[in-house]
Amino acid sequence: MDYKKMLVDERVKPYLLKARYGIEKESKRVDLLGNLAKTDHPKSISMRDDHPYIQRDFSELQLEIITPVTETLEELFDYLAAIHDVAYRSMGENEMLWPLSMPPQLPEKEEEIVIAKLKREEKVRYRQYLSNSYGRRKQMLCGVHFNFEFGDELIHSLFNAQSEIKDYQHFKTEIYLKATRNYLHYRWLVTYFYGASPSSEKNFFKEDSLKGVVRSIRSSKYGYTNSDDVQVSYSSIQRYVSDLSLMVEKGLLSTEREFYSPVRLRGGHHVSDLENHGISYIELRNIDLNPFEAYGISYEQAEFLHLFLIYLLWKDEEKDCDEWVKMGNIHNDIVALEHPLEHTQFEIEAKNMIDEMESLAAILNLETYKTLFSHLREMIMDPSKTLAGRLYKESEKNSQGQVAKLIAKENYKKSWDKPYQLTGFTDMELSTQILMFDAIQQGIQVEILDRQDQFLKLKLKDHVEYVKNGNMTSKDTYISTLIMENKTVTKKILQQHGFRVPKGEEFHTIEQALRAYDLFSTKPFVVKPKTTNYGLGISIFKEGANYEYYQKAITLAFQEDSSILVEEFLNGTEYRFFVLNDQVQAVLLRVPANIKGDGKHTIEELVMQKNRDILRGKDHRTPLETIQLGELENLMLKAQGYRMDSIPKNDEIIYLRENSNISTGGDSIDVTDQIPDDYKKVAVDAVAALGVKICGIDLIIENTEIPAANKNAYGIIEANFNPSMYMHIYPYKGKSRRLTMHIIHYLFPELLQSY
Amino acid sequence: MDYKKMLVDERVKPYLLKARYGIEKESKRVDLLGNLAKTDHPKSISMRDDHPYIQRDFSELQLEIITPVTETLEELFDYLAAIHDVAYRSMGENEMLWPLSMPPQLPEKEEEIVIAKLKREEKVRYRQYLSNSYGRRKQMLCGVHFNFEFGDELIHSLFNAQSEIKDYQHFKTEIYLKATRNYLHYRWLVTYFYGASPSSEKNFFKEDSLKGVVRSIRSSKYGYTNSDDVQVSYSSIQRYVSDLSLMVEKGLLSTEREFYSPVRLRGGHHVSDLENHGISYIELRNIDLNPFEAYGISYEQAEFLHLFLIYLLWKDEEKDCDEWVKMGNIHNDIVALEHPLEHTQFEIEAKNMIDEMESLAAILNLETYKTLFSHLREMIMDPSKTLAGRLYKESEKNSQGQVAKLIAKENYKKSWDKPYQLTGFTDMELSTQILMFDAIQQGIQVEILDRQDQFLKLKLKDHVEYVKNGNMTSKDTYISTLIMENKTVTKKILQQHGFRVPKGEEFHTIEQALRAYDLFSTKPFVVKPKTTNYGLGISIFKEGANYEYYQKAITLAFQEDSSILVEEFLNGTEYRFFVLNDQVQAVLLRVPANIKGDGKHTIEELVMQKNRDILRGKDHRTPLETIQLGELENLMLKAQGYRMDSIPKNDEIIYLRENSNISTGGDSIDVTDQIPDDYKKVAVDAVAALGVKICGIDLIIENTEIPAANKNAYGIIEANFNPSMYMHIYPYKGKSRRLTMHIIHYLFPELLQSY
Repeated sequence: MDYKKMLVDERVKPYLLKARYGIEKESKRVDLLGNLAKTDHPKSISMRDDHPYIQRDFSELQLEIITPVTETLEELFDYLAAIHDVAYRSMGENEMLWPLSMPPQLPEKEEEIVIAKLKREEKVRYRQYLSNSYGRRKQMLCGVHFNFEFGDELIHSLFNAQSEIKDYQHFKTEIYLKATRNYLHYRWLVTYFYGASPSSEKNFFKEDSLKGVVRSIRSSKYGYTNSDDVQVSYSSIQRYVSDLSLMVEKGLLSTEREFYSPVRLRGGHHVSDLENHGISYIELRNIDLNPFEAYGISYEQAEFLHLFLIYLLWKDEEKDCDEWVKMGNIHNDIVALEHPLEHTQFEIEAKNMIDEMESLAAILNLETYKTLFSHLREMIMDPSKTLAGRLYKESEKNSQGQVAKLIAKENYKKSWDKPYQLTGFTDMELSTQILMFDAIQQGIQVEILDRQDQFLKLKLKDHVEYVKNGNMTSKDTYISTLIMENKTVTKKILQQHGFRVPKGEEFHTIEQALRAYDLFSTKPFVVKPKTTNYGLGISIFKEGANYEYYQKAITLAFQEDSSILVEEFLNGTEYRFFVLNDQVQAVLLRVPANIKGDGKHTIEELVMQKNRDILRGKDHRTPLETIQLGELENLMLKAQGYRMDSIPKNDEIIYLRENSNISTGGDSIDVTDQIPDDYKKVAVDAVAALGVKICGIDLIIENTEIPAANKNAYGIIEANFNPSMYMHIYPYKGKSRRLTMHIIHYLFPELLQSY
Repeated sequence: MDYKKMLVDERVKPYLLKARYGIEKESKRVDLLGNLAKTDHPKSISMRDDHPYIQRDFSELQLEIITPVTETLEELFDYLAAIHDVAYRSMGENEMLWPLSMPPQLPEKEEEIVIAKLKREEKVRYRQYLSNSYGRRKQMLCGVHFNFEFGDELIHSLFNAQSEIKDYQHFKTEIYLKATRNYLHYRWLVTYFYGASPSSEKNFFKEDSLKGVVRSIRSSKYGYTNSDDVQVSYSSIQRYVSDLSLMVEKGLLSTEREFYSPVRLRGGHHVSDLENHGISYIELRNIDLNPFEAYGISYEQAEFLHLFLIYLLWKDEEKDCDEWVKMGNIHNDIVALEHPLEHTQFEIEAKNMIDEMESLAAILNLETYKTLFSHLREMIMDPSKTLAGRLYKESEKNSQGQVAKLIAKENYKKSWDKPYQLTGFTDMELSTQILMFDAIQQGIQVEILDRQDQFLKLKLKDHVEYVKNGNMTSKDTYISTLIMENKTVTKKILQQHGFRVPKGEEFHTIEQALRAYDLFSTKPFVVKPKTTNYGLGISIFKEGANYEYYQKAITLAFQEDSSILVEEFLNGTEYRFFVLNDQVQAVLLRVPANIKGDGKHTIEELVMQKNRDILRGKDHRTPLETIQLGELENLMLKAQGYRMDSIPKNDEIIYLRENSNISTGGDSIDVTDQIPDDYKKVAVDAVAALGVKICGIDLIIENTEIPAANKNAYGIIEANFNPSMYMHIYPYKGKSRRLTMHIIHYLFPELLQSY
């Protein structure tokens, strides 16, 4: 087939960059001193053998991070980052991940390397076999596997741009075989740029079999390879499959999985499936951990691999493919064993290939790789810029182990920096980030159906649940949320069920509302638009109002909505009850923005101090908002006889706002354990009356020590169908209530059964 | 107690008009000639003995309409009208309601008056007893019962404005007793104004016991009264209850229910409950059917009764209450038996009372009764303006029976005029009106929680369902509607389940979208904003587009939303499938506004002809919209070489619009029976994949004769979570599909079990 012609076909060009990606990345858990961890796999991570994101590899302390398949590199790296966050915070504050492919110092007795304590016996047996065949030391090598699939549309368009092969599946398999053979032949280029295992720590090699420093131990013959007798042809899928079977038959491999090629052909569960269904993607396995990237591989590396594969599809190969692949192995071993600061002996070829790749990219209108090519050229010209080169140079000042430990510490710190965030998805709502964290930890597959819309698909085996905004789920009915959306309807239903709600009326015209003045004038009351939720158009009269004020308030409210409510104002403290499936999971008190004096600092200084809390930030990106010192706060201070530079007395509390919203710097205080059960029962029963399962219901309570059954002991202000969760999870004071985990367990009760 | 002082108390005034109302109204079913109907109670009305709205009274052909309790007179009359609509249309087109209290000609043999065929034997037995005691003729008298309750807030404020009675319930009972005694004393005034049974038809009286014409046979001693021995005191609730028991004990009454006082004290299920729980409301029973009102009583009458009761509370009574009540009976009988055109002998007293009422209304700041008082004064001055006077005068030209028949016909016509509307609630959405119609017919209690918001509470025994906009219910989950609200998410889920949806991409920036030009340029495609639903910002390119047009379309779409979709355009016909609980209940084809030529009329004339259909109207108040001849239609005509005054050939169809929306004059054509099952299965399965129970799903089908399983046979365009129902119920062509009834049965499956 004329790949060169096919790739530049106009019908093909639009789809050239369509692809699907996946990353598997292994690393070793170590303690804060950089010694191999002695602990078991973290218990907070679901212990399923088939956890979709976090598994154990050969050893109990080898943590493997697996991304889902994505259609963009951006999303791929988002998941990679997020799963790392989950892994780190699940490991606890006493462990970190070793950033190198080469392990830190191993125990003298190799039996001390603990085999992964998996549930399925068969899996443990296989590891036992590997341990016997290759030794446990070699198994401690870690790396990145890069799964790559050409986009369906791309393969279709290529298929249509030729006429030689009539069968689509056959065509697709040929595409992957060509790319694979060329990758095997030219992979020395990857080893040159990104090889990153120059030397080993103590006890890795039994005898010092390898002298000196190299580019990549792992990619060389000293790495993790099959015996030389294992030979498989990539000339056709039939040959590949039959060769592999033969190797197993001969006993050279215990199973097809034991075949450690730098490229694995994928499709179906068994190698034999390949013959029937063809290749559906390939797995590049020769990538060392990039020590300088928190997640073991850089975005640019992935870009390179993608472009490299397109280039390899385009680039001619030799007819004798077995020879071609074998030559590749030899060249790769040469490059892998070169000194990291030495120019490679294939330098000219490397340069030519990069030139060729760049001009191909131009022909194909792929214009976004400028920095990539300049970095690649830099690395060719200056080997100290390659990963192996950089790591080696840094290790010269210090030991390689010391360098690795420092890097690990930095990564560790970053992952604990903002524990409420999920790196990779910080553009999403906080509650959704936390829910995704918990889902990933619980081994639930998380697919983002609409990122802007916070729309998730959660999947556990065959069980699918969709979630929007963290807690809009299948558990609530449509009508129950419509009930909560309508304040008048909510009140009517609660009232019909015997709950106390503020008395009031709804009006549709100013005249109507004015006529009702007498009904409210002498009592505390509130005027508010019926549907606006942001506090706009609300007037509170704590001691009644004269007609003129009433009229103003009515007019104001009608500016926000075509219907308004006038309601009695209830005195007391407002509590937010978070009710989930007929249980109160959290109760929160919100206190207006405030500072507490120490007799030394000014109000401004105290605000700055308080704002230093990592929980405080801006625009709902953090559980609490920074306290402002704007016009409203200054007015409030003035009213109390203070200025920003006043120095409050020790323990004096000064409020900076009237309203207690978290969004204007208020404090959130968990009081779940302090609220008496009878009030919790009111909340639960009221939520049930509305037919709701997930609800944030606001109660005004005058005095929690008075029984809820007393007349006017409480009043229900509002029921919210998408209640904020993060403020309960990261309160300013009091216990954290992990509501997102409750949601997960509510949606997937089977999780609790398997514990 | 000083009622005069209490009522003008400033704390009382705001609540004076707070009250709750209910109406029961009996009438006889007659055929179109005005003869008593020979049919059974209509089968389409749920046959429950305890139907909340439509029951049978004494006879099978006596239809009783019962409103729910309302807090405003407006709502009271809305329900009264609506239930009449349901009654009429359930009776079928061969029957009407007799508008007079007096029956039309009765059969000679009174046994031919059929007793109501109720399910509970006990009820039939009671009617048999009544038949024996009073004769069946008297039982054929019909009237209006007006149930009245002073508002809770009013009674509370009155209670607080005095100190004599300490017990609230006792106080409340005293209030009602005073109003009742005064009502019994002064009720001749009601008889004068609104008495409306001046003469009887043939066979009502056995002998001609009553000579001449009067104001109200029904309210007189010739009407439906207990024997003179039945005497009950209203001096206290204890006396009332014990007197009634005594009457039953003595055998003068078979049961307390047989006590036919013009005012019945209500509270609890049994009279004895009154003693324990007090009076909760009163029932005024002396109201003749108002022949000139389609619903038997006018709004003004109800206003009068309300004001009259406040006035009677205020007005002094004599100490000897039994005597006071007895005098009332005598006075009433005098007035009832006066000639309808004769001035009443209590004229001066009547005038004084009206003057007093009006000045009281002024003192109490009740300013809205001007027309009422002028009408009342007119009636006092000119007896021919009273109801009896008017009916008598009209009967002079014709017979009373003829007058009644003509009135009945008019009412009948009105109720069939717009069969898709529910009178009283025509401001609500059409689908909600039809759903309310069906619910009322099925004997489901309908409470409107929010009228503007189309929010209903439906109740059948203890089973409550809330419904918004006709089909937003508890049957759908919150998340499933959120899925449908998001086009991208809907498509992803359908695609993951193997359904064909238009291929496309979502973009968040203009640049992103422009970069994808090559992906779409050469194929039919659509550009649309992600969430707008009104067709704004949509561009269709049926044969691809050049870059300039593409760019324009992208810019246009981004003006409507921050995210846009570019999708392949599917060729074929769009069908709307209405899926309910995994079944296709209706399939609709929408055809753009069009006319069919006859070789004689101009296009303009043909449009006018077509618009005469009662189904066509404006602003979604009718099942179809009138066809416009505006700018767009004229352009479309011009493009086809026509003008408004062109005369199309016979049977030639001319389209006036590109789009097929019903809202722009399109035709709706039911094709439920024509669509093959395999396409229905696609619709059902797709809706199930979205987890939805009530859904309008739009399929593009190229050719319904090609099996749905064929590649690209169909494509799914959209799923709607609040699909229009009225267009299926009243299609332009094809069978009506009563989707609202399906919804009712889906929500209340117990209805089907009891059939």
